[in-house]
Amino acid sequence: LVKGTDSEGNTYWEIGHNRRVGVSKFKGTTLINIREYFTAPDGEMRPGKKGISLTLDQYKALLGAIPELNDELRSQ
Amino acid sequence: LVKGTDSEGNTYWEIGHNRRVGVSKFKGTTLINIREYFTAPDGEMRPGKKGISLTLDQYKALLGAIPELNDELRSQ
Repeated sequence: LVKGTDSEGNTYWEIGHNRRVGVSKFKGTTLINIREYFTAPDGEMRPGKKGISLTLDQYKALLGAIPELNDELRSQ
Repeated sequence: LVKGTDSEGNTYWEIGHNRRVGVSKFKGTTLINIREYFTAPDGEMRPGKKGISLTLDQYKALLGAIPELNDELRSQ
């Protein structure tokens, strides 16, 4: 589990090649971002177009769905 | 936890207004989709632009990051 801190000081975890889950704040609201990144010409990693920023409520709902989702995956 | 089946027969769970996590198959590969939806003019819910489709490995990495992610959220 590779953890890092981006150029804005936000913590993220790598979940695959150029994909991260991380936490950020926007206007006082905490967001959980699951997003693709790319290497910009200056060598910095920048967020790409593919991804979604979840509110805490949406993230909690995602956590709540995980047991059933895992059951679904196991049944396939 | 509201669970449903979309027009392609894929299971999903609602994680917020017009947001779903669901499972699909693409060319034999299982994908876990976390995505925004919108109501099309015909009344059907269609996938929107915001979202990401994770491979099983990326989904497992996400699951692995959740304990540390939750610690980070609690520390804020």
